[in-house]
Amino acid sequence: MTNDDGIDAKGIREITAAVERLGDVAVVAPDGPRSAQSSALTLETPIRAVKVEEREGLVRYAVSGTPADCVKLAVDKLLGRRPSLLISGINHGSNASINVIYSGTMGAAIEGCLHDIPSVGLSLWSHDKDADFSHCLPFFVGIVERALAEPLPRGVCLNVNAPRGEIKGVKVCRQADGRWANEYQQDNAPRPVPYYWLIGDFIYSTDGAEGHGYVPDQTALQEGYISVVPVHADMTAYHAMEMLGGYETL
Amino acid sequence: MTNDDGIDAKGIREITAAVERLGDVAVVAPDGPRSAQSSALTLETPIRAVKVEEREGLVRYAVSGTPADCVKLAVDKLLGRRPSLLISGINHGSNASINVIYSGTMGAAIEGCLHDIPSVGLSLWSHDKDADFSHCLPFFVGIVERALAEPLPRGVCLNVNAPRGEIKGVKVCRQADGRWANEYQQDNAPRPVPYYWLIGDFIYSTDGAEGHGYVPDQTALQEGYISVVPVHADMTAYHAMEMLGGYETL
Repeated sequence: MTNDDGIDAKGIREITAAVERLGDVAVVAPDGPRSAQSSALTLETPIRAVKVEEREGLVRYAVSGTPADCVKLAVDKLLGRRPSLLISGINHGSNASINVIYSGTMGAAIEGCLHDIPSVGLSLWSHDKDADFSHCLPFFVGIVERALAEPLPRGVCLNVNAPRGEIKGVKVCRQADGRWANEYQQDNAPRPVPYYWLIGDFIYSTDGAEGHGYVPDQTALQEGYISVVPVHADMTAYHAMEMLGGYETL
Repeated sequence: MTNDDGIDAKGIREITAAVERLGDVAVVAPDGPRSAQSSALTLETPIRAVKVEEREGLVRYAVSGTPADCVKLAVDKLLGRRPSLLISGINHGSNASINVIYSGTMGAAIEGCLHDIPSVGLSLWSHDKDADFSHCLPFFVGIVERALAEPLPRGVCLNVNAPRGEIKGVKVCRQADGRWANEYQQDNAPRPVPYYWLIGDFIYSTDGAEGHGYVPDQTALQEGYISVVPVHADMTAYHAMEMLGGYETL
């Protein structure tokens, strides 16, 4: 188990408690918030891992790196083996649509499936640090049990997002188109040199969606469903390859 | 122009000099090394931008954030417009195969195409800080000119990697399968608590490659070609959607 909100966040504590009965659990998570760390790795400094708890069936390590670092270090050194399943989350905030590419939660899940570990990223569409997970936990445990029972395809992990409020069911979706606008707030005071805080408005429209015949995850979320998107690390835009033939004549 | 090795790296200085004649150039790049930052964003602190040079046709800003931060800040605040083209690089090191997902160079290029800017990530397969770019610069300039003249599809950028030594030509490729193993070196001295440096061996085999009928970029590189991979931010594993239908019955 890992996350990007840090080892003490409510989301990872709640999902850990909910799945402990399924088997031995190892939590290897960042020692503090690492939101929007994507698949970033720590190269310029070494990282540390501190064992913060150990008892029958459970061990917990706090790591000074990114979520993807946590997965690599767990497999290569701390556990020395591939676990049966990797759970990343529950994230405090949605990772639907384009947010999958910035998400540390999903960076860890993608790292997991690159190590041939069935991997599931779980998120709730609420940034509340004290968010109520009780409505989505039973669904998340069901998804985890299914991922344990039925192997995911090689190199594929799941991006699972839950809405607030009543849940109508689960929908298998594609990643929705979406974008961020008005991204920075500029301040000067109390310093003379301007500084910029990342803020931004998430813009989502279903107009002109390419389709592929699948429901976009953001649409499913907005309609009250849990979205499940199969995610892989092959970023090749196969549909664009034919039109690039001219580059070969350079 | 941006990069992930920092605004003073040789790679970005050489490509900037080579493309200045094509139009007005704005360099908005990290103020130091930000390798393996993927699409990470700076959320927990504000970022700063310092104008380090301005003359006819050229302006340069050093930014205290990640490569993806640089692109967002340039478009939203520093330039206040979308440039005609974004060049990220030249990176000191290959971003072929799975390295595209960790690469700050490619995080910036992906950010560019999400802002509807034609975007090209350029990398040389050498980590030498004083690498010789003279053999690949004419090809990179040709690729840049082509991207300016012929629009790339919406949401698609290019991951371009050059080999060392003689270049046989340019190949349009898919992202190669590949993985990292033996990822950490553990040390204790001079401290009693172990710490871990990310090292790792890149493992590449063409055995069992899924194919799709396209050359993997790592293979093209190893054979002496410049690889050009169209990259997009839709990480949906469409081939896996049908087999996930059971999740909808949870």
